[in-house]
Amino acid sequence: MPLVRIDLRRGKSAEYRRAIADGIYAAMHETIQVPERDRFEIISEHDAENLIYDRQYLGIERSDDFVLVQIALRRGRTTEAKQALYRRITERLREAPGIRPEDVLVTLLENGVDDWSFGNGQAQYVMPTQ
Amino acid sequence: MPLVRIDLRRGKSAEYRRAIADGIYAAMHETIQVPERDRFEIISEHDAENLIYDRQYLGIERSDDFVLVQIALRRGRTTEAKQALYRRITERLREAPGIRPEDVLVTLLENGVDDWSFGNGQAQYVMPTQ
Amino acid sequence: MPLVRIDLRRGKSAEYRRAIADGIYAAMHETIQVPERDRFEIISEHDAENLIYDRQYLGIERSDDFVLVQIALRRGRTTEAKQALYRRITERLREAPGIRPEDVLVTLLENGVDDWSFGNGQAQYVMPTQ
Repeated sequence: MPLVRIDLRRGKSAEYRRAIADGIYAAMHETIQVPERDRFEIISEHDAENLIYDRQYLGIERSDDFVLVQIALRRGRTTEAKQALYRRITERLREAPGIRPEDVLVTLLENGVDDWSFGNGQAQYVMPTQ
Repeated sequence: MPLVRIDLRRGKSAEYRRAIADGIYAAMHETIQVPERDRFEIISEHDAENLIYDRQYLGIERSDDFVLVQIALRRGRTTEAKQALYRRITERLREAPGIRPEDVLVTLLENGVDDWSFGNGQAQYVMPTQ
Repeated sequence: MPLVRIDLRRGKSAEYRRAIADGIYAAMHETIQVPERDRFEIISEHDAENLIYDRQYLGIERSDDFVLVQIALRRGRTTEAKQALYRRITERLREAPGIRPEDVLVTLLENGVDDWSFGNGQAQYVMPTQ
């Protein structure tokens, strides 16, 4: 179910962008039990002037390769699970496409089981209780 | 009040995109009492490589015409109202522009009455209680 | 921590767009204690047909200069603080780049302290309690 929005600067190859999306999905699968095939990700590329970020907030040095990841997902993960997710995303993206952990911002937005319809006009996650 | 973000592949006509936006607004008006004129929708078109979705998750067959709809709205709709909304959106989009119900993913993000300012720097929905 | 998404019509100069981002950050700093350097903003420019908004909802006259601002931030601001934020954003944007208060829609999405990782795979806001 997670819906992942990935924002970065324009200019990276399709392979580079794909590796980001692959790595985030793999990290979600490994740490917060996102199922096989439950994958929906949107990548937006921006001119430098339209992706504004502080290069030193909290003492973290951000470069031109900064990536911003906003994930909408169902409520219920523990703080520990979220911490494992953040860690694993940066590990995955460091492996491929080779992004420094300093350049990865991740933020979550939680919603409910009845806030998802994956097609056919049904709320698939609440059907068992109907 | 709902703010609707619509994401789809690049290549559809302005009329086609308009029909999607019209259908979603009509469905919200019909099922969750969104008022006349309360309409704010953003359409983003993506290259295929930047709109990533599984073509079979939950056994639903998705095509190149896949549309992802994320709606931010005030808290308080029942599960039944949300189910009616999902159903009606797919019915509307099947009528025009002619999208298969399998190709429509809808997800919601809820917020509060004081989380909306429609202009003039005021929080219009909380003014009566001030 | 706030993540600010700014949507407007295509056609404004880089200076104009920068002034919007600057004004919103300044208003957050002044009214809801967003810290120095805590600045992350994404600007998306749209063709007219892809940015759909009612020009009269709630009796507010919106023009082609309409700007939509969606801010994700931590839970916990009072209604009064949010009202001050909305007011200050419109004041700032009226000063520069010169946007009518009627043309500024602001909406918030709240999340938790453990929903932010600013880099290095850590949830910086929850570290003190670990």
